[in-house]
Amino acid sequence: MKQTKDDYDKFHRKPMQVHNAQKLLSSYGKPGPTEKIPLQEGHGRFLAEEVQAPHPFPRFRRSGMDGYAIRSEDTTQCSSDNMIWLDVIDEIPCGYVSEKTIISGTAARIMTGAEVPEGADAVVMLEMTELREHEGRTQMGLKRMIEAGKNITPVGFEVKEGEVLLRTGRQIQAGEISVLASFGVHQVTVYQKPRIAIFSTGSELLTLDEPLQPGKIRNSNTYMLASQVRVAGGEPFILEAVMDDLPLAKAKVEQALQEYDAVVTSGGVSVGDYDIMGDFARSDSVEMLYNKIAMRPGSVTTAAVKDGKLLFALSGNPGACFVGFELFVRPFILQSVGSGKPYLTEWTAVLDQDYTKVNAFTRYVRGRIEVRDGILYAIPAKVDESSVMVTIKDSDCLIVIPPAKSVTPAGDKVKVLLLKGNTL
Amino acid sequence: MKQTKDDYDKFHRKPMQVHNAQKLLSSYGKPGPTEKIPLQEGHGRFLAEEVQAPHPFPRFRRSGMDGYAIRSEDTTQCSSDNMIWLDVIDEIPCGYVSEKTIISGTAARIMTGAEVPEGADAVVMLEMTELREHEGRTQMGLKRMIEAGKNITPVGFEVKEGEVLLRTGRQIQAGEISVLASFGVHQVTVYQKPRIAIFSTGSELLTLDEPLQPGKIRNSNTYMLASQVRVAGGEPFILEAVMDDLPLAKAKVEQALQEYDAVVTSGGVSVGDYDIMGDFARSDSVEMLYNKIAMRPGSVTTAAVKDGKLLFALSGNPGACFVGFELFVRPFILQSVGSGKPYLTEWTAVLDQDYTKVNAFTRYVRGRIEVRDGILYAIPAKVDESSVMVTIKDSDCLIVIPPAKSVTPAGDKVKVLLLKGNTL
Repeated sequence: MKQTKDDYDKFHRKPMQVHNAQKLLSSYGKPGPTEKIPLQEGHGRFLAEEVQAPHPFPRFRRSGMDGYAIRSEDTTQCSSDNMIWLDVIDEIPCGYVSEKTIISGTAARIMTGAEVPEGADAVVMLEMTELREHEGRTQMGLKRMIEAGKNITPVGFEVKEGEVLLRTGRQIQAGEISVLASFGVHQVTVYQKPRIAIFSTGSELLTLDEPLQPGKIRNSNTYMLASQVRVAGGEPFILEAVMDDLPLAKAKVEQALQEYDAVVTSGGVSVGDYDIMGDFARSDSVEMLYNKIAMRPGSVTTAAVKDGKLLFALSGNPGACFVGFELFVRPFILQSVGSGKPYLTEWTAVLDQDYTKVNAFTRYVRGRIEVRDGILYAIPAKVDESSVMVTIKDSDCLIVIPPAKSVTPAGDKVKVLLLKGNTL
Repeated sequence: MKQTKDDYDKFHRKPMQVHNAQKLLSSYGKPGPTEKIPLQEGHGRFLAEEVQAPHPFPRFRRSGMDGYAIRSEDTTQCSSDNMIWLDVIDEIPCGYVSEKTIISGTAARIMTGAEVPEGADAVVMLEMTELREHEGRTQMGLKRMIEAGKNITPVGFEVKEGEVLLRTGRQIQAGEISVLASFGVHQVTVYQKPRIAIFSTGSELLTLDEPLQPGKIRNSNTYMLASQVRVAGGEPFILEAVMDDLPLAKAKVEQALQEYDAVVTSGGVSVGDYDIMGDFARSDSVEMLYNKIAMRPGSVTTAAVKDGKLLFALSGNPGACFVGFELFVRPFILQSVGSGKPYLTEWTAVLDQDYTKVNAFTRYVRGRIEVRDGILYAIPAKVDESSVMVTIKDSDCLIVIPPAKSVTPAGDKVKVLLLKGNTL
């Protein structure tokens, strides 16, 4: 319990700014190996290839209406007083190609989406027409002039051949699947999900289904982190909790660093006597990147690297653990899958209520976004004790409160980082 | 090709307003059967039970700092000129319970998160203290008065016993998992995912990996819909495309309505001769709910019910199909899993550019949200030809443009429906 040189290092850590820490980490977040998977399994994955259009779209002149394919020049004399009649010489459902050519005086019945026959240069919608049998022929009648090109989508109107459909690093969602399927891309090359090992530290931790014991608390961070890893696009592996024993923790974490793409721990980084992960990060076994961040909650957040692999040692406090993941681990996972947008979306909002806590460090306050009449408001969660885990679930943003010596008043513009969605 | 009574019905459909259609459908969207699953598999699922706190949290008086547990009354005389010294009689790491009682003149070394020993009523942080060996005893020295309760989180401060932690219908995400795990809830009862059958109609449709053929297009909607079903919380089943043949389509759809919780089709609902799904919905086999919606794109969107099960017959046009799913099918799926918030989040935004298309129906224009200096702007996608499927992927909202006879000018307030995220 003596205060030693090690203690001195613990107490006199040099805090790093969040964006500097992110920059430092980003040199380790590189797209990893790729794999080819069926498109149907691609939802949520990130493209490891640029996809170009193998053909124009539409590939043929496409009817935009149910009606008749005609020659527009046949309609120049049409008016409400002058109906013209054209012989209906074919009927073209979707998926079929007419073998006939529309010549002056003729028309073909055509469906939405079908290929416009040769000779025709416009489609008139069914509702504008009449139908009759005349001298043994089926005829359609029309009283309005139709301009050339009407209701026909030209070849390549939506997409030209060779056009880039989707860039490398794009996440595959419903809209991307629609595009890829339209062009017959039935397999996609995506980045493999990084395999992330998750530990909790601390012998006070009970597993989920152990009975309660005095003084002990349940290990909730590992399960929360697993969920965050999944959402970010990684594959979580929950490993046995590391006890408060440096050699044991060291051995387990080093083994995990070999077997997985990164290791995330929670706990064991504060300024105490059992700060196993902090001690490990400061040891010769690894290269420490930082062991203090100029932020609240989670200033003790630590990171180290060994053989090019990252150890994220997050705070054991649930709120700080959550924030540390979103700011540091999530970007690493997104960089590993090639995403071009690894950081949380940042918006400017109006602070809805006074924020009274003061601090020398930037605060990442859990809160909610509300839009009222086109203006974005940021509402801090009622309690922001960093230990109050119940606010995590009710938050959809982190409100960034810069270092302040007095109250940050309602009405101030603040940055918010979106936690749920808006991934564009 | 004669225009008959059936044609008359096709052409003279009575359009229903979107919110009326949603209301009509909502009587069929009821939470389904439940299942018990391990918490670790619960991510994204919806709770079918209310979860109450089985114990207060924290369960014991918890130290908020690394430092010393003391009696605050011992510090009343402390000042920068007057250091007081207390005997350190125990050391309490996390997870252990001290058997000693702090009496006047004593203190215990304690870690963040550990249980505060009996007798102590405050924790002083390590950095404020000095340490010495004095007459064979270990002592800590302090120069500042510490108030009672300092750095101690009282029992039940975060959550009282029996307090509702999560309500029925709540989606389980990282924050919810954190809460549940903290209370040792290792199994959760959730609503089963509704099983949704997906068909495409139309003999013009090629499967994903078939070679191209003249006049035909690839079946992209089924894969897009499967992705949308998954995101909404359902389980998609892609069934063989229904050809343009009424008896065949009827048989397949009726069988699917028996085997699955709902059926979604795309295509075959416009005003043409092969409008299989429309004809089916208007037939005696089912009860039609609507076959026209006062909206663009997708006014032909149709729904019917048979034996209490819903058939959603969406437009075959990719853009209209996408929108129809988000407005009608997604809410049904969310209602089936007990969500209290089945509809897309609606915000008010400022229209960023003139919207020039006019229409008698409300338009759901694909677009993007941008926040500039606290104000929310809605930016319509460049092209909103309803057939232009490439804009789906670049959209994070639907901009609601009410019926307009002229331009909707930039600066107008418009409603936007969020497509990605902000699920709170």
